[in-house]
Amino acid sequence: MDVTFIIDILGTLAFAISGALTAMKKQLDPFGIFIIAIVTALGGGTLRDLLIDAPIVWMRDLTYIYVIGVATLLAVIFRERLNYIRKSLFLFDTIGIGLYTIIGVEKGIEADFPPLICIALGTMSACFGGVIRDILCTEIPIIFRKNVYATACILGGAVYFVLLYTKLPNVAIVAISGGTVVLIRILAVTFNISLPNIYKKEIVK
Amino acid sequence: MDVTFIIDILGTLAFAISGALTAMKKQLDPFGIFIIAIVTALGGGTLRDLLIDAPIVWMRDLTYIYVIGVATLLAVIFRERLNYIRKSLFLFDTIGIGLYTIIGVEKGIEADFPPLICIALGTMSACFGGVIRDILCTEIPIIFRKNVYATACILGGAVYFVLLYTKLPNVAIVAISGGTVVLIRILAVTFNISLPNIYKKEIVK
Amino acid sequence: MDVTFIIDILGTLAFAISGALTAMKKQLDPFGIFIIAIVTALGGGTLRDLLIDAPIVWMRDLTYIYVIGVATLLAVIFRERLNYIRKSLFLFDTIGIGLYTIIGVEKGIEADFPPLICIALGTMSACFGGVIRDILCTEIPIIFRKNVYATACILGGAVYFVLLYTKLPNVAIVAISGGTVVLIRILAVTFNISLPNIYKKEIVK
Repeated sequence: MDVTFIIDILGTLAFAISGALTAMKKQLDPFGIFIIAIVTALGGGTLRDLLIDAPIVWMRDLTYIYVIGVATLLAVIFRERLNYIRKSLFLFDTIGIGLYTIIGVEKGIEADFPPLICIALGTMSACFGGVIRDILCTEIPIIFRKNVYATACILGGAVYFVLLYTKLPNVAIVAISGGTVVLIRILAVTFNISLPNIYKKEIVK
Repeated sequence: MDVTFIIDILGTLAFAISGALTAMKKQLDPFGIFIIAIVTALGGGTLRDLLIDAPIVWMRDLTYIYVIGVATLLAVIFRERLNYIRKSLFLFDTIGIGLYTIIGVEKGIEADFPPLICIALGTMSACFGGVIRDILCTEIPIIFRKNVYATACILGGAVYFVLLYTKLPNVAIVAISGGTVVLIRILAVTFNISLPNIYKKEIVK
Repeated sequence: MDVTFIIDILGTLAFAISGALTAMKKQLDPFGIFIIAIVTALGGGTLRDLLIDAPIVWMRDLTYIYVIGVATLLAVIFRERLNYIRKSLFLFDTIGIGLYTIIGVEKGIEADFPPLICIALGTMSACFGGVIRDILCTEIPIIFRKNVYATACILGGAVYFVLLYTKLPNVAIVAISGGTVVLIRILAVTFNISLPNIYKKEIVK
């Protein structure tokens, strides 16, 4: 059990809990909660694998489904107390998107796509589970409105490619670029930074 | 023309009519009604085939599209009288999900996926056309809120795997597990059974 | 740089601007606008390529992403002045759907699908980017409500197959069938033609 695997599992756990919470806000039933949890945790990677025509990992390795099952159970049982661990959840989630971004970037490199597409695949891995979650709950995806989430992934992916030109070992490249995602997201949330608002008040729909 | 084929066609017909009815409730135009009918009838199987990288049947065998065309026409022409045949529709639809579930499970076994994923593929075949239909009509998917539909598929799929350990011939396994889906759904609708509600009144959004 | 390529780029530009405009109506942030522009311009072709298991062009050739980036920038900068060039936009968009339809039909023929499916693939290439755009913005897709857009593609695709039986050279077949899409769409918009309304007033939901 290496570190990457543990982070992957913690990230899946955090994504699944975030999905279950959204589903419970919409008063879905237990089956609906479980499906939204699955889609939030695995949707981004699945879309990426469909686009690059790669096999879909969770369909062969059931660990992910089990983890999401446990996460859904925990979220349902402790739904009124999840506020108390919101900070730990945020941390897992943030580390999760850092890791998912790098996994996506590396899958793109392996399949020989251009850097820009690899960064897009990384961002998709980290963010599109949440997009599908929001669509299934008939919300406009939150990352289209508050997107430092995605910006962090894009910048982290870019750092990855810059570092490829150095002679750093792969583990350092992964740690630094993944860390960039985590750092930007934490800074953005801490200092409440978001992309510039391009709308004047009077254009409100 | 064997029995499976006839059931498949009747199931497609019922799914397509259910799609057309939802589309007409949203006042879509004839093209929109046809597309929603197609998506309801074929969306679940198409998603399944994308995930397991199998060829998509309706793109090579036009029977399905013709049946859906006829179903759409019938639904549009008789839209004010469909209430009178609601019971026959429910029966076709229910037999359809039973059959679609087993088709999905068997496709998963053929492609050598673990049992849990095969059951998921069966449930997806039977239920996700309706999910896409609801999303295209900007509704939260009904099976996330009233899910005995999906539960019936999951249990029927589980029965299939239990029966695999007996020495029953395949046709009996298919009939019993498919019949389980049908039976559970009919019982659930008749006795108005649904998954436990986990929400207290005061959590209403 | 041949004519087809230039039309393809102009079509992508027009589709991307239409996506960016929809996104700005929903007050999305710059990242959201860019994603909606991408999805509008490339979503239909991507779905087509997933269904026919073909490689996805924009993931290998970055021209499309660059064009969409420029289109997004232009749309954001000139968002208050886009009304003045609405007519040019409509023209590009219309030529774009004509071209996208024919590209889709030809991809279907190459992969040896039946004519009806090829026409569906053409229509999908031209129209489903807009469907995904509307879903991501939680609107019922506009082409399900005002569908001369799709009808034009279907008729243009049918003309393509009729012309295949003549001895016309390919370039003429492409020009005439693509031109049919453009002509029908322009006529429909000019004379405000739409599919027959099948709803009586009293069925309003």
